Amino acid sequence: MQPDVDQLCVNTIRTLAMDAVQKANSGHPGMPMGMADAAYVLWTQFLKHNPGDPSWPDRDRFVLSAGHGSMLLYSLLHLTGYDLPLEQLQQFRQWGSMTPGHPEHGDIPGVETTTGPLGQGLSNGVGLALAERLLAAQFNRPEFDIVDHCTYALVSDGDLMEGISHEAASLAGHLGLGKLIYLYDDNHITIEGNTALTFSEDVPGRFEASGWHVQVVDGHERTAVAQALHQAQSETERPSLIICRTHIAYGSPNKHDSAKAHGEPLGVDEVRLTKEALGWPPDAQFFIPEQALVHFRTALDRGTGAQREWETLFARYVEAYPELGAEWKRRMAGELPAGWEKVLPRFDAEAAPIATRVAGGKVMNALAPVLPELVGGSADLHPSTKTYLDAYPAVRKGDFGGRNLHFGLREHAMGGILNGLALHGGFRPFGSTFLVFSDYMRPPIRLASMMRLPVIYVFTHDSIFVGEDGPTHEPVEQVAALRAIPGLTVLRPADAKETVAAWRWTVENRSGPVALLLSRQNLPILKQTEGDGVVRGGYIVADAPDPQVILLASGSEVELVVQAQEQLTREGIAARAVSMPSWELFEAQPAAYRDAVLPPGTRVRVAVEAGVSLGWERYVGVHGEVIGMTRFGASAPYKVLAQQFGFTAEHVVGRAKACLDQAARLQ
Amino acid sequence: MQPDVDQLCVNTIRTLAMDAVQKANSGHPGMPMGMADAAYVLWTQFLKHNPGDPSWPDRDRFVLSAGHGSMLLYSLLHLTGYDLPLEQLQQFRQWGSMTPGHPEHGDIPGVETTTGPLGQGLSNGVGLALAERLLAAQFNRPEFDIVDHCTYALVSDGDLMEGISHEAASLAGHLGLGKLIYLYDDNHITIEGNTALTFSEDVPGRFEASGWHVQVVDGHERTAVAQALHQAQSETERPSLIICRTHIAYGSPNKHDSAKAHGEPLGVDEVRLTKEALGWPPDAQFFIPEQALVHFRTALDRGTGAQREWETLFARYVEAYPELGAEWKRRMAGELPAGWEKVLPRFDAEAAPIATRVAGGKVMNALAPVLPELVGGSADLHPSTKTYLDAYPAVRKGDFGGRNLHFGLREHAMGGILNGLALHGGFRPFGSTFLVFSDYMRPPIRLASMMRLPVIYVFTHDSIFVGEDGPTHEPVEQVAALRAIPGLTVLRPADAKETVAAWRWTVENRSGPVALLLSRQNLPILKQTEGDGVVRGGYIVADAPDPQVILLASGSEVELVVQAQEQLTREGIAARAVSMPSWELFEAQPAAYRDAVLPPGTRVRVAVEAGVSLGWERYVGVHGEVIGMTRFGASAPYKVLAQQFGFTAEHVVGRAKACLDQAARLQ
Repeated sequence: MQPDVDQLCVNTIRTLAMDAVQKANSGHPGMPMGMADAAYVLWTQFLKHNPGDPSWPDRDRFVLSAGHGSMLLYSLLHLTGYDLPLEQLQQFRQWGSMTPGHPEHGDIPGVETTTGPLGQGLSNGVGLALAERLLAAQFNRPEFDIVDHCTYALVSDGDLMEGISHEAASLAGHLGLGKLIYLYDDNHITIEGNTALTFSEDVPGRFEASGWHVQVVDGHERTAVAQALHQAQSETERPSLIICRTHIAYGSPNKHDSAKAHGEPLGVDEVRLTKEALGWPPDAQFFIPEQALVHFRTALDRGTGAQREWETLFARYVEAYPELGAEWKRRMAGELPAGWEKVLPRFDAEAAPIATRVAGGKVMNALAPVLPELVGGSADLHPSTKTYLDAYPAVRKGDFGGRNLHFGLREHAMGGILNGLALHGGFRPFGSTFLVFSDYMRPPIRLASMMRLPVIYVFTHDSIFVGEDGPTHEPVEQVAALRAIPGLTVLRPADAKETVAAWRWTVENRSGPVALLLSRQNLPILKQTEGDGVVRGGYIVADAPDPQVILLASGSEVELVVQAQEQLTREGIAARAVSMPSWELFEAQPAAYRDAVLPPGTRVRVAVEAGVSLGWERYVGVHGEVIGMTRFGASAPYKVLAQQFGFTAEHVVGRAKACLDQAARLQ
Repeated sequence: MQPDVDQLCVNTIRTLAMDAVQKANSGHPGMPMGMADAAYVLWTQFLKHNPGDPSWPDRDRFVLSAGHGSMLLYSLLHLTGYDLPLEQLQQFRQWGSMTPGHPEHGDIPGVETTTGPLGQGLSNGVGLALAERLLAAQFNRPEFDIVDHCTYALVSDGDLMEGISHEAASLAGHLGLGKLIYLYDDNHITIEGNTALTFSEDVPGRFEASGWHVQVVDGHERTAVAQALHQAQSETERPSLIICRTHIAYGSPNKHDSAKAHGEPLGVDEVRLTKEALGWPPDAQFFIPEQALVHFRTALDRGTGAQREWETLFARYVEAYPELGAEWKRRMAGELPAGWEKVLPRFDAEAAPIATRVAGGKVMNALAPVLPELVGGSADLHPSTKTYLDAYPAVRKGDFGGRNLHFGLREHAMGGILNGLALHGGFRPFGSTFLVFSDYMRPPIRLASMMRLPVIYVFTHDSIFVGEDGPTHEPVEQVAALRAIPGLTVLRPADAKETVAAWRWTVENRSGPVALLLSRQNLPILKQTEGDGVVRGGYIVADAPDPQVILLASGSEVELVVQAQEQLTREGIAARAVSMPSWELFEAQPAAYRDAVLPPGTRVRVAVEAGVSLGWERYVGVHGEVIGMTRFGASAPYKVLAQQFGFTAEHVVGRAKACLDQAARLQ
């Protein structure tokens, strides 16, 4: 008996995954083989997409949270007609190919987000679905549902064990994201063996407790999967989880249901045996039956038709609501409205001292009316981080017209959701917490950096000057640890003026994530600081002719080096003070500029930063010194900590003189 | 009517918290006021402890996971008779006091763990309870339950929102930790407002889904709390959650049930009004009624009696089982058995190349029989991290005789549980995952460092040479980010020989956590490496008289600098190659040693590490260069990546010569 076309299609996915992993001699064949049935049903019967235009704004989003099963996604992309040639599948996991080990967002059409680190895709999906609801609330009008799509994801037991999945699921349930539909590959197998070794949760109970709609199906019964997807679509008040009981490496005579099929090739012999068992030509490689390909490729016509229908609707929308239509186009293109920068507040050096977190809050609230794409929130700390957009309501279940998100104490999911909001398009998302808790969300920050997403992190309470809360709440190593992430721009402004400039640069630059590090404590508005300097990353704030010593600092410590420079000048020592709000921006300057700020001939340098010294040696060199933290902080009023840990102008002056003396002795 | 003594005691806790926060003008009064009733019941009727000897091994453990309510704990410690004088409570949050903003383990008697970052204490408690079960399985004998205590914690909605709490709760339920009893302060208030803003989970349903026994009580009904605690104690198969519905700032006429009482003082007037409402002398500060103190201090006699009873039992145990008794004492003292190091494997430079993860696995399996305190596991990656102790079973529900823990994909909880195991005493815990996923567990690594806990992290797949899995799985910034943490020792051995030495140093040093960074790929066993060098952090592996250039590297890149040194020698350039397995150990050496390895006069230096360069400038100076990563990695076989990213001996030679040329030009 000939297999029907559905079976042919499903087995094509399976054999492509087997072949690609075998050829690369590396990868995860078991998951694509196990989830081929359910994914096939989703992609051919439910997913609204146009392989011919992966950027169609109203497409459904599909996230492969279990990114190790990347060959499932690559197979589906190729088969349904995305611009991902078969030759690329044959180059799986090779240098320069479009088929890396885990799906990478960017150059591969149809890959909505970079996945692999478990739990991340699951949380990105919540952000994508939230973006859809927010955009719909802002742009849809009666009879014009121009924003109306679902977000699907395929998640694994590994995703569900990660804490971020609980956080994200809890928020999705809380917000009632009814158009979020997840398929859970319940295959009972992890790398270490059976999930029973470590995972005995009542998964339906858990998701129901978080407000989800839960169904359980046999993941190889395609009709049942389709029925469950229909049910999930008709459930509009709650996100849906469809638990698909599957068998890893389905079809493999000897590795079916085995941990051996999780993260390594089946082996040449087993590939052959599996193909035989599936009724496949056992020696054909990357074989795609014509009948299967034709069937898969109907997605192109369907997709083109669906997109055309939407475009017709959108054209009528633009006629009916020309301003909204223009605004939509601007938002989706990521362009800024003309004159947006005029609303930026100005801070005067004569004004009273102000914490940069407070200045930052004023900037955000000034920007909010002209930048409706600015949405975000904090991990239960907005009264402290000052990131609430006061003129706008909070986002809540059933009412997505707000701009403020209450993430709760879920920093990790906040990071993942921000990535989803940015990936969707139409938003400039921000998230906020204390700098020390950036540690709770490094994995999504890393992924935002890798994907170059324009996410904004507002990390306040940026040093030991948190004070009384003590070392658990005082960042010491976090500034360095953020600077270590490639592609992340870290900005630590010295005062309110630099804060405005930092925000301005952030708004103008969409090429990657930005971390704004802001003070808890009040800081004087320095007459020496200037916005033009901030965008160059480092600049001279106080100078003397032929400086013998250069003092460098960022953030709240700039005040100290300015005072120290004045003191040294009074003592007849020619000194320069440099504000270094951003190493990344400074490094991006031409060498001539960098050498003008830090002349190679002036070797005596002292850097001051209320954090670990790691990396400052780049700027102070071997004759220099870093006044930083070599231990964790302590609980005490911040002015006491400044004295105890040497963050005073006197101490800076003393160390500068000591360095000068030492340099003189060495000469 | 005079209030009864219970009410007096509870209000003493409340007023002490109010007064201390008000005097410090900083802190969280609301939680101690809300949880005073339940905590009082626990501490006076259930908690087995001896305030006179906080180190009694069989005491119950109490964790204040909601560490911001630190005044609750400090009040209880002072009142029940721990060596924490009232003067210290009056110095709340001041420099050098024993009452920092959040509880800090170490110098404060009775503080079992450092808390504040939410979710951490909750996971530490799981580790403490697991330690109790493991020790009991190893040491208890019929009629000698020398290990038999409970672990209690007070957790908040903030704890429960954090992902780590889900991970830890899931594991606790999976393992059936029946002696784990948590009180949940269900006060409906977070910093941003009502928990309904963001937290609508069915908490009982959630914990039941994770295998917990759940009860709900009015947290101000002390009899009900006591009854629930009795029930929880008699439930031995499942961990228990007692949901205490409470009112934050209970007793405050105007701030009761208000987010305003969460993180700031009540205010002088409100303190006065609250005292009046509680029937307290309104103007007395830090007032402790004699009757209340006498009642609280009965804990001393009870505790002394309980401990004496245990000591009698233990003395009989030592008689009956002298070897076990001696072993117990050794384990609890953290001493090593004589001659333990003899079992360490030896690797020969003639032998075949071997990945340091594989060498590490051999070391661990050799150590396991002589170091029964070595217990741990991996976050579902042991087949890759090679950390399974093959001769021992896994720990599982109902059978705690094993040594291998299946943490599942729960890196964050793994970190918190390792801290709990270390805090308990009797163990040298290890946890393992890929280096890139250390990002998922930075908060507990930070706390281990702060508490100086002897936790061992085995982070394998330590560079881009992960290869095919691609950038999501390739650490780039993680080595630098770990080096940034004060108190953490990072060891990245160059080969199997250095791996043995690194493990040896780790076993011998209990002064803080250690991260062992091990390779995925095979590495030659170099004839130049040596164990004695490893413990000094950096040492010369190849040399020439009067070297013009110094090449430095760690881990897998040491091979490259050794090859490059040979090549340079062949070309007549005097070069030195230095292996730098640990910056922390190198920095701890005397200056004379450091200068001997890196002579200040030899300014031309090239460091090679397959990660970001951040911090290497400390060693290479201004004339030097770092061959590192300036971007994320890529998916390809690792030898291709080495070529593409310049990690070849040829490239090192070329850069060394370029640096020499440049230095010559500058002179």
